[in-house]
Order: sequence, then structure tokens, then C-alpha cells
Amino acid sequence: MNFEEYFPVWHKLSPLHQKMLSEGTAVRQVKKNTVLRGGEEECLGLLLVCSGQLRAYILSEDGREVTIYRLFERDICLFSASCMMNSIQFDITIEAEKDSEIRIISPQVYAKVMEESAPLANYTNQIMASRFSEVMWLVERIMWQSFDRRLAEFLLEESRIEETGELRITHEKIASHLGTAREVVTRMLRYFKSEGLVELSRGVVEILDEDGLLKLCGQD
Amino acid sequence: MNFEEYFPVWHKLSPLHQKMLSEGTAVRQVKKNTVLRGGEEECLGLLLVCSGQLRAYILSEDGREVTIYRLFERDICLFSASCMMNSIQFDITIEAEKDSEIRIISPQVYAKVMEESAPLANYTNQIMASRFSEVMWLVERIMWQSFDRRLAEFLLEESRIEETGELRITHEKIASHLGTAREVVTRMLRYFKSEGLVELSRGVVEILDEDGLLKLCGQD
Repeated sequence: MNFEEYFPVWHKLSPLHQKMLSEGTAVRQVKKNTVLRGGEEECLGLLLVCSGQLRAYILSEDGREVTIYRLFERDICLFSASCMMNSIQFDITIEAEKDSEIRIISPQVYAKVMEESAPLANYTNQIMASRFSEVMWLVERIMWQSFDRRLAEFLLEESRIEETGELRITHEKIASHLGTAREVVTRMLRYFKSEGLVELSRGVVEILDEDGLLKLCGQD
Repeated sequence: MNFEEYFPVWHKLSPLHQKMLSEGTAVRQVKKNTVLRGGEEECLGLLLVCSGQLRAYILSEDGREVTIYRLFERDICLFSASCMMNSIQFDITIEAEKDSEIRIISPQVYAKVMEESAPLANYTNQIMASRFSEVMWLVERIMWQSFDRRLAEFLLEESRIEETGELRITHEKIASHLGTAREVVTRMLRYFKSEGLVELSRGVVEILDEDGLLKLCGQD
């Protein structure tokens, strides 16, 4: 396995630290929809995404969801190892959105190396800062953007990820990503349809007018 | 100045690193309402709060605000030195909520020491994780909580910070903290008044029934 692809600072680690991390890593294949870490489960470890796609989300007491960020090939998930840092006081749930191959680094091993290695600690800082930026971006969208814009952005993002304009996704699932009720999604999609932006059929949202959606996002 | 009070890892730094940080720090007195760092200003540096109170918030394009977190005595503000980390891709504005004495560590000096010192890098990680937790808590409140609960929580928090039940704060200012319109705050405060929870007069919200507000927050 090429750790360099995940950790650009790999060559700055001592041979001992490299060996500890290599030996502390396990491979795991996960099927689509597998929950990798429920909020209250024990500390899983750092996740490296080799292939596939993961989703990090939070859950309300009554079971509603909102997507916080997504992880693709070569991404690292830090918050699945939150026990490493006692300042992390929140629960994120991680789920495989596609069949995925992941590598899991033991949180004890990672914490030990990070404690001794300034390059690894600084790189970990960078990963956290990136996730922080994504969450801040989410806050801005929730606070300032109208729902039509958030939905248009979501459809365009999905289409980019899936590389198709024909999205196989239920209204329920969209609601879970955006942290709202299914009815709200259905109502807005019907409005999009009446405007000729999308076509709707069972379990499918087809994008008809990408430029129109981009315009809604203020990116025309 | 006692750096140990801000950095519990101070004794793990080399004498050279301690000297660099000491010499890279300046004192500044700021008056209430001073904006310490506008979103687009250049990189100010790490802020250590010696006395007083700071507020970190984000601004929408049309000038609306929402409070992200607050900083009190002995707190450290990292995001006023965001140039240190190029993974930080968002703008936070920091304002003095009270007359404050702060110390500012040069971002270049801090970055240099952090690069070489694993203890400082790890401690910086912890600070960021704490702020991350606060923002995640904010997301959860925005997404799942009704506005009456958010307002009740805000009034109780203000009362705890100010150590008085008679809050000198305008509806406009409350709206800026919570990221909503003044009218929404006024309407809910009038409802609180009709329920005997608060008394309203010009520029003042007086808490009459703390237990009632706690009940609204689900903490009875």
C-alpha cells in the first residue's frame, strides 16, 4: 500500500514511525449502506478510502439526518478516530454510499506516532482544517441560502459525483442529505419540474436543464 | 506573561521555541465593538484573551451575522491566524464584545514553531477540535431545534455570562447572534412576555422565569 498517496509528509516520518503505521493498518471491504461508525460505537480508527465513497452525517434524536461531508478515493476520515482527541465532543456517523475498500489505522498507533512526530501532527491539523472549512460552508448554506438553491446545488453535485444527469435517488434520501422533510423536497422538485429543470419518475430525478439549475445557484 | 496558562504544553517546548514565541507576541488593548479581523483583512495572528470577551461570527453577502463561538479569558483564537494553514477556506470575523486585553502571536512565528514542535502541533489540534465541536453543536441547533428553544438558550447563556437577569441587549443584536431577522426575535420575545417568562423595556430583556426558560430548553 502506498501511504505517500494519503500522507504527503510520509517521507518526513522516521522508519520506525512508518513501520508502526504500516503494521497498525488493516484492510476492509464494505458493502454499500454499511454503517461504519454509529455515533455511540467505540473508536474505529482513521479511515483511508482506497475506492468507493463514504458519507459523514449527524443524526437528530428523532432520527433525522443531515450530510456533513463526503469522502472519496484518497480521502482520510479523522472523526472515526475521535477518541484520539478528547476535545472532539460530537458524534458523526459514517456510512458507505458505494461498495468501498478502506484501510483502517488503529487509533492508538496513530495517536502515538502523532504525539512524537511534528510532521504528522501538522498534517492532521490540515485534514481537520479542511473538514472544518466544509462544515463552515454547510453552516453558511443552511443560514443564508434559500432551499431552492440548496436543492439545485445538491442535484448538480450528485450529477458530478455520479457522472450522469439521471440520478437514482429517492426524495427521502435527498431529504436526509439536506436535513429536511421528504414533503419539502417533493414540493420543490415538482416546482423544478414545472419550470422544465428536471423530469421525475419513480426513484429517479433526471436533470433536463443544467444551466437553469446553475442559474438558481447564482453561477450563471 | 504566563504562557503556561494558555499552553499547558509550554514546558515541553525547547528554550529556543519558548523564546521565539515570547518575542513574537505583542499586547493590545481593544475597546468594546472593535472589529479585530474582518473576513478579508490580512492575517492578524493567534489571539490570546487576557481579559474581556470576543465574539467570532460569519457574515452573509447582504450583511447578516451569526455567532459561531465566543472567547473568554484564557481562550485562544486560532482562526485569526488562518493564513498559517492553507486548508482553512472560510472567513470568520472577530469582534470585542467587551473592552479587552489581548496578546497577539505573530502567525509566521507560531507556524515556524508548530512545524518543528510536535507538542505545540498537537495542542493546536486540540484547540481546533474544540472549536470544531462548538460549530457542530451550532449545526445541530440550527438544524433540529425550534427557534423558541434557541432563543431561550441564548437568553440563559447571556444571563450566565453577564451574571445578571437584566440583559442590556437590543432585539437587533440578538438577531445577529442567532442569524435571523429582528422581527422574528421581537415576535418570539413578545410571546415569551405573554407567557410571563420575560419583561421587555427599551434595550432591556429581563428574565422573570428562569425555570420556564430552562423547561423550553428541555432542561427541567
